[in-house]
Amino acid sequence: MSARAGIVVTGTEVLTGRIADRNGPWLADRLLELGVELAHITICGDRPADIEAQLRFLAGVGVDLIITSGGLGPTADDLTVETVARFCGREVLLDTELEARIAEILKPMMARYTGPGAPDFATVRAANRKQAMVPAGATVLDPVGTAPGLVVPGTPTVVVLPGPPRELQPMWDKAIRTPEAQQAIAGRTRYEQQTVRMFGLPESGLADTLQHGQQSIADFHRLEITTCLRRGELEIVTRYEPDAAGAYAELVALLRERHAGKIFSEDGALVDDLVARLLAGRWIATAESCTAGMLAARLADQPGASDYLAGGVVSYSNNAKEDLLGVDAALIAEYGAVSEPVAEAMAAGALRRFGADTAVAITGIAGPGGGTPDKPVGTVCFCVALGDGRMLTRTTLLPGDRADIRERSTTVAMHLLRRALSTD
Amino acid sequence: MSARAGIVVTGTEVLTGRIADRNGPWLADRLLELGVELAHITICGDRPADIEAQLRFLAGVGVDLIITSGGLGPTADDLTVETVARFCGREVLLDTELEARIAEILKPMMARYTGPGAPDFATVRAANRKQAMVPAGATVLDPVGTAPGLVVPGTPTVVVLPGPPRELQPMWDKAIRTPEAQQAIAGRTRYEQQTVRMFGLPESGLADTLQHGQQSIADFHRLEITTCLRRGELEIVTRYEPDAAGAYAELVALLRERHAGKIFSEDGALVDDLVARLLAGRWIATAESCTAGMLAARLADQPGASDYLAGGVVSYSNNAKEDLLGVDAALIAEYGAVSEPVAEAMAAGALRRFGADTAVAITGIAGPGGGTPDKPVGTVCFCVALGDGRMLTRTTLLPGDRADIRERSTTVAMHLLRRALSTD
Repeated sequence: MSARAGIVVTGTEVLTGRIADRNGPWLADRLLELGVELAHITICGDRPADIEAQLRFLAGVGVDLIITSGGLGPTADDLTVETVARFCGREVLLDTELEARIAEILKPMMARYTGPGAPDFATVRAANRKQAMVPAGATVLDPVGTAPGLVVPGTPTVVVLPGPPRELQPMWDKAIRTPEAQQAIAGRTRYEQQTVRMFGLPESGLADTLQHGQQSIADFHRLEITTCLRRGELEIVTRYEPDAAGAYAELVALLRERHAGKIFSEDGALVDDLVARLLAGRWIATAESCTAGMLAARLADQPGASDYLAGGVVSYSNNAKEDLLGVDAALIAEYGAVSEPVAEAMAAGALRRFGADTAVAITGIAGPGGGTPDKPVGTVCFCVALGDGRMLTRTTLLPGDRADIRERSTTVAMHLLRRALSTD
Repeated sequence: MSARAGIVVTGTEVLTGRIADRNGPWLADRLLELGVELAHITICGDRPADIEAQLRFLAGVGVDLIITSGGLGPTADDLTVETVARFCGREVLLDTELEARIAEILKPMMARYTGPGAPDFATVRAANRKQAMVPAGATVLDPVGTAPGLVVPGTPTVVVLPGPPRELQPMWDKAIRTPEAQQAIAGRTRYEQQTVRMFGLPESGLADTLQHGQQSIADFHRLEITTCLRRGELEIVTRYEPDAAGAYAELVALLRERHAGKIFSEDGALVDDLVARLLAGRWIATAESCTAGMLAARLADQPGASDYLAGGVVSYSNNAKEDLLGVDAALIAEYGAVSEPVAEAMAAGALRRFGADTAVAITGIAGPGGGTPDKPVGTVCFCVALGDGRMLTRTTLLPGDRADIRERSTTVAMHLLRRALSTD
């Protein structure tokens, strides 16, 4: 037995890449947790014929559940409900009680917009009447914003959710708990999923190890392994039914044997999580040039970061390096702003200025301009300085464009920080 | 006549959301520029049956061109080439010349990895031999990384590209210029596309205006309009054939008439572009608390930002606000760190410390903790201070979770900056 699902993401703005889809990945995670096999995500614009073609495709490959996101808004290009109804062979009817509920929701929202050009209430209510049109026999999920969701039973069952992630996410829990959805995914299998993360190993090196595992591990074929190189980190995700846990243990042993120094996480923890744990009881400051605040922002992504994050200086200009971090102008003149001595002086300055016991400095050439034969675009110098005087300094040459180099720089800095704090 | 295309994105790591797909949106833009209609993007894992089902679906809906991304790597889960070959009914053959070329590419790459655990050259070359397997009759596109691309002629023609964006993007230009690809898209139509951006108008207010346009503009039906609310900004993208330009001009006139103060861009320019232009000849510094560097990093996203970006202070802790920005401790004690007086003092401090003529300060409660009845999570105070003593100060209550609030804060700050500098 198993249960398979497909996700249909609608919206011309998503299809054309003007906004990135966050719902497909989020729903994929939820399905994985449930043990439902996600087979396909399909994206199309706000065209009924294209939406319907995707629904038919997914029904044709035999999924048990389809989840749609988007196309529930008040504008005329929002056509998901009527398309799903047609696909399911159901009439669309006005739900007057739901219409009244939406009207209640709109009142306070409209109060926020006033002045010339603001829409009047009656007009808005009319535009939102279409959000109260429901396929016969469908279960209505209460609006989080103004758009209700739907569960339309059938073969496959279709769960219709709004596009904005902050509306879709709270609605999902209610949708999947409906008897119709539970019945659709009744055949789901429980899987285990484990993640190992490495830093500093090429993907082909891992391929070699996995080939070895294929020969040395008896139940290797029961492990569904996917590998992914991202921002210099190699992620190995393995999914297996619970009784194949022994094979997975053998795989982990093999990885440890061959790549001990490169593995930084065996429990799925990100380098951000590890660094956050290592920073407990410490006080950290950053000094950033080319990344211009991205590292500080990344540290602050963790809720509760105020326990250990003092702050940072974005010393984009040389003057800022001198005035705010106390970097000696002579050092910049002699070695250049992108150099290990300057990175070290920046880190030392951050320690001092913030009264911190941990500091990270980044100075580099992100391009597109500013490269030289000696220091091409992608040259980035890092320093981690600790309160006891220890320093860990590195220079790397990072690939990619301006955005890649800056983002990758934050990852290198996180790993340097992890190393410096792990050997404490 | 028209030409339609579909994109097949493969990779279990993309399907399961572990990495975000950047290729679908990027290819969507390229197709749009060419006047090729993108009908569907489909995403599946590294399973040949699912990849083939998607290829058949796209062929079934009649697209002229399919572009695949991913699944060209050396690992055993990379199966796109053989699946495409089967779909096209072509044999797969070893291209020995290509194999030699890949071997040459690998040599210097391998030199970067040394020490225990590093893969030996012969193993890697064997793992990469499969990258030299080519469907009979296909045109080979030279590798940018180690994976070659392919153009496989047929109905539809299939362009096979590698997954990493930095390999896919340079290869695309060569792919689309091949005679096989040109023939597939011969029926393309030239479209115009224009974008209007607004800030501070609800989507339903726009819906009302568009309904009005439907009645008042004769050729309204010839405009393909999509609207999208993103980070508080409303984006209206309109596509039309060149001879419907008059209808578009009428639409823009209508938008101006009804929402003059809310329109900030009529040429597709982002607020980031506008702010970058307004900052020419100025010298800006940031002072950030909850956003912790995201605004400085966003300013630095623009190549050439060093012409106007002095730097910034991430004053995450109260001490940092006092020590690095000179905020009076008494002010924090009296009004709280999240308050307009503190935002103003932070901006003034940034002006002073960086010798800047423009400064932006952000201080807010991003959550999940730290909210109070008076200042709930989402309360954010902003101040733009200019060298002539003028200040623009605002407090907003932003919706969403920690990440939403922080990101939205940078957008509000950009618009405040735009307003302050526009009225100069």
